Amino acid sequence: MDTLGRFSVETGFFKHYEDLVIREVIPYQEMALRDEIDGAEKSHAIENFTMAAQVIATGHSEGEFYGMVFQDSDVYKWLEAVAYSLRIHPDAALEARADDIITLIERAQHPDGYLNTYFTVKAPDKRWTNLQEAHELYCAGHMIEAAVAFAESTGKTHLLRIARRMADHIYTHFITDGHEGFCGHPEIELALMRLYHLTEEPRYLELAGHFIDARGTDFFIRERAQYPWMVWGNNALDREYTQTHQPVREQTDAVGHAVRAVYLYAGMADTAHENGDAALAAACRTLWESITRRRMYVTGGIGSAYEGECFTKDYHLPNDTVYAETCASVALVFFARQMLTLDKRAEYADVMERALYNVILAGMQLDGKRFFYVNPLEALPGISGEAITHKHALPVRPKWFACACCPPNVARLLTSLGRYAWSVEDATVYSHLFITGTLILPEEIGGSITLDTAYPYEGALRYRIHVPKGTACFTLAIRLPAWSRETTLHTNGQPATYAVKDGFALLTREFADGDEIAVSLDMSVRRVFPSQHIAADSARVAFTRGPLVYCAEGVDNADDVLGLRVERETPVSTLAMNALGDIVALQVKGYRLRDKGALYAYDRPQAEPCDITLIPYYAWGNRGLNEMRVWLPEA
Amino acid sequence: MDTLGRFSVETGFFKHYEDLVIREVIPYQEMALRDEIDGAEKSHAIENFTMAAQVIATGHSEGEFYGMVFQDSDVYKWLEAVAYSLRIHPDAALEARADDIITLIERAQHPDGYLNTYFTVKAPDKRWTNLQEAHELYCAGHMIEAAVAFAESTGKTHLLRIARRMADHIYTHFITDGHEGFCGHPEIELALMRLYHLTEEPRYLELAGHFIDARGTDFFIRERAQYPWMVWGNNALDREYTQTHQPVREQTDAVGHAVRAVYLYAGMADTAHENGDAALAAACRTLWESITRRRMYVTGGIGSAYEGECFTKDYHLPNDTVYAETCASVALVFFARQMLTLDKRAEYADVMERALYNVILAGMQLDGKRFFYVNPLEALPGISGEAITHKHALPVRPKWFACACCPPNVARLLTSLGRYAWSVEDATVYSHLFITGTLILPEEIGGSITLDTAYPYEGALRYRIHVPKGTACFTLAIRLPAWSRETTLHTNGQPATYAVKDGFALLTREFADGDEIAVSLDMSVRRVFPSQHIAADSARVAFTRGPLVYCAEGVDNADDVLGLRVERETPVSTLAMNALGDIVALQVKGYRLRDKGALYAYDRPQAEPCDITLIPYYAWGNRGLNEMRVWLPEA
Repeated sequence: MDTLGRFSVETGFFKHYEDLVIREVIPYQEMALRDEIDGAEKSHAIENFTMAAQVIATGHSEGEFYGMVFQDSDVYKWLEAVAYSLRIHPDAALEARADDIITLIERAQHPDGYLNTYFTVKAPDKRWTNLQEAHELYCAGHMIEAAVAFAESTGKTHLLRIARRMADHIYTHFITDGHEGFCGHPEIELALMRLYHLTEEPRYLELAGHFIDARGTDFFIRERAQYPWMVWGNNALDREYTQTHQPVREQTDAVGHAVRAVYLYAGMADTAHENGDAALAAACRTLWESITRRRMYVTGGIGSAYEGECFTKDYHLPNDTVYAETCASVALVFFARQMLTLDKRAEYADVMERALYNVILAGMQLDGKRFFYVNPLEALPGISGEAITHKHALPVRPKWFACACCPPNVARLLTSLGRYAWSVEDATVYSHLFITGTLILPEEIGGSITLDTAYPYEGALRYRIHVPKGTACFTLAIRLPAWSRETTLHTNGQPATYAVKDGFALLTREFADGDEIAVSLDMSVRRVFPSQHIAADSARVAFTRGPLVYCAEGVDNADDVLGLRVERETPVSTLAMNALGDIVALQVKGYRLRDKGALYAYDRPQAEPCDITLIPYYAWGNRGLNEMRVWLPEA
Repeated sequence: MDTLGRFSVETGFFKHYEDLVIREVIPYQEMALRDEIDGAEKSHAIENFTMAAQVIATGHSEGEFYGMVFQDSDVYKWLEAVAYSLRIHPDAALEARADDIITLIERAQHPDGYLNTYFTVKAPDKRWTNLQEAHELYCAGHMIEAAVAFAESTGKTHLLRIARRMADHIYTHFITDGHEGFCGHPEIELALMRLYHLTEEPRYLELAGHFIDARGTDFFIRERAQYPWMVWGNNALDREYTQTHQPVREQTDAVGHAVRAVYLYAGMADTAHENGDAALAAACRTLWESITRRRMYVTGGIGSAYEGECFTKDYHLPNDTVYAETCASVALVFFARQMLTLDKRAEYADVMERALYNVILAGMQLDGKRFFYVNPLEALPGISGEAITHKHALPVRPKWFACACCPPNVARLLTSLGRYAWSVEDATVYSHLFITGTLILPEEIGGSITLDTAYPYEGALRYRIHVPKGTACFTLAIRLPAWSRETTLHTNGQPATYAVKDGFALLTREFADGDEIAVSLDMSVRRVFPSQHIAADSARVAFTRGPLVYCAEGVDNADDVLGLRVERETPVSTLAMNALGDIVALQVKGYRLRDKGALYAYDRPQAEPCDITLIPYYAWGNRGLNEMRVWLPEA
């Protein structure tokens, strides 16, 4: 069961983020879409819809399409975030403006249901002829996601009707009329599954499965030969880039463009679960392991190379030239959530948490005004953002990008956390992420659960059960994070009775109104040792506390992070810090090298004892340009 | 004084390399130039000259130009190596074939002296209209270098006459007729200086100085606007790439394509010395420091990025994605030699030696049959040569390349070591590189010096003075390598009397026939500590012994180099090894990590004590695919 609409974040850590998205990100993004930001590169996304509506109405339009071929998706991702935000914080004016945009979108729709402003305005004769590059199905996917979100969150189905006409058009083209093809950028698959879950229309499930199983052919090579027009000239022969090198059921390594790959896997896992498709589920598990056992940063970042924004090879995890796109970690959260439908294994939620609290939060400045697309684990002023190899790896967050994918992806995720924090299956209620708020239980159980916590900085979780009718029999399955050395549970002050299965503590009982389950997670700082196969991390360690990965930043460390060496066995102390939004910083004993300035020296550099201050990775880059490092060498 | 023709390598380490070049490299390269190697990508370089000669003779040619725009230079570099080889090892048949090729080259020359097969065959109306990309002056430079080498080594001036006609044509075009311009790939500058040194024709010195001082304008941008044709479409706006971002006298950082940069600097230093131009000399010193104090690998490799084969930023020295082109280190040897004409400082020769014994020798397989263009300091099987970021950084040497720049550059350097091993200025004889052989002293001194040594594996140098006329008064200046902690000198068995200046031991005396100067270099293994600003080398050390940098290879270390940790203060032992051509290997105590296979673990991996075997860097990659690392983490 999708718990999105049943959960409200109430106070605390993520309430701040919800507010930030609603107060800063959504309005800023709307201004960007409307080209109302002075000095920013124009988006033209709304204007593209206006022109497309003119074409539909009159057969032609003044002006030219502007922006990326997938510019429409910026509007849809914004609308999706708006839908979630309206549930959290009703805003009649915003809702009216969103309704106006939806009306505009409808006016840009062709009578046959087709809807894409690039093709309507710029290339009306080229529909469905460059699936490799042109993102038509990708944009349709985001429209569908926004439509489903609007229907779920506001009950309004205007956008849903538009999206269904487009989905039906796609069904006709690819299934009824039998045109070969699938999208170069997966997204439609997971979107069709969302549409299916909402509407229960089997054609959408069929279409998702069709697009998944159609991959793994040389279709893009034949398409390019038949229709040689190009958007960027992506190489059709690079079949790994688009995950078409093998049928998906035979794929064993996570390869190619990381966002594309993991959107696909998320759609695959959802389809596999819905169809009870064991072979497809097995492929998902294999790809999950490829990512999380060999190709993922400790921050939950994925995609090691700027070139192609791609997965590369096992254990290739450079810290400074990394891509680790914010969107890719959003995709990883989606995939993890779908894997949880296949297998009730806490490791999926562990990874979801890792990606959320580290890369995804780092993607946004603490004031919500600037964004990282790339999330390095090492920032080197003078090199990062400067060297020809590091142009992408900026050491401070930039403002809006021409390709505005990441900020709206963060916005829609942070306003829909209920979907990831909990899940309910039959009579089991899973608590995956520890966010203060209340979950309304399904009617067949009844009542609600309120979680109160100062997580991620404190390890005490307090679940209170509300059962107006007196008692309710169900299982509360609480994730036992792998990083917590020892987790203790109490029920109403007494040691709890529970089973442990695949990383979940299962408390099965007849819960009475007012029951309280107290969980104490071990928040000791953990030293993390990298696999020896990761060349970039040799002889280095990272520090985590709870779900947070830490890093050293120059501003806390005398502007010299590269010269720091951590003492091997020393304990680590915590330190409340008022800066950066009331964080808990860490202090660890170490040394600061003082070399004499030679490029190579025969004398061992002197090392002075020092205290090394670490801050949560998500908060880095908020105090100007400075060195930053997650993996610190041990002395 | 150029000591090339006065020095003969007699036995030992470099005699082997001379033989290898003469026996393997030059014949193989000749077959390549003639397209006689089955299965190799064809060169067509000789065929291009044949076609150009047809054009000159008949006005047209069948067939098409094939290869790089600078394909001619492969023939010239081969001819230069042949010239040197004929001095070492006369070979009438080879000489006759070279003469035939020179005759063919002459037949491809236009009546006005112009000579370039690309333009003659493919683009006759485009002469001198794409100096940025088309390498016309670059090819002319290599022709000039070959011509000078032929004249010096064989006394034959046929190629010299051809080259002078081209040089005179260039002078007319750029000086007499006043056409603006300079080459996108420096090389002509140093070549014109060589031509000037041989001929003493002041126009060549003038032309070299002209091309040097003409840089630093937006000429390439204007040229592209005026003549929009392109070879590759290099970006004219990237002025650093071609070292035209500033007048050379104002340049302070080594930037852009490394080979271009350092060829330019070598020509600048030669010109500065010849003209007594203090400002230009100062610029050379600044650029030398930029390279050697902040942008050079411990191996003497330069160029940190594949993209543009470029210098990047200070202290950006990645070990695995490095470029460190073999040709760039050849260029660094040229630059160092010219800096020695400006300042008698041993540090220049130290760098020359570092580049020669490490990158340049590593460029060639021990059997002379395969070549590295890129010289990584870390090879990661499965990633190196495989990941999209590492396609260039091959972990084993490939055969011939379509762009055959590096092998002939190594060939010409290794057959002309006399030019770098010694220099003579007035009555001072400088011994820069320690190579067994005999130097004929200039007539005004008389006699010869024979150096006998098992260097680089032993530190004993024995200089014997031959003065047929009885005595000779001069200064023998012997480099005191920076790596030798303590160097002792004896004259005829007695502690020598000498002054030390800028890294040279100056022995000034009336030498008698049979005098013997024995030098003992301290060959203790040195642990090298990298600047703390080099992020990639944090907490790692390298090992050197004498001029050799060492590395760990998998084949000597249980196929696991990434898991090795070196003990901090442990002594290092040496070990004679019969493999790899009788090397001295090193053994150092350390540990081998045994992690349990997790990507990230909370348990410190176990470490077992082990002996770590290190081999000279130049010998790596001769025993198949395996891990290799120069910078090893300390435990």
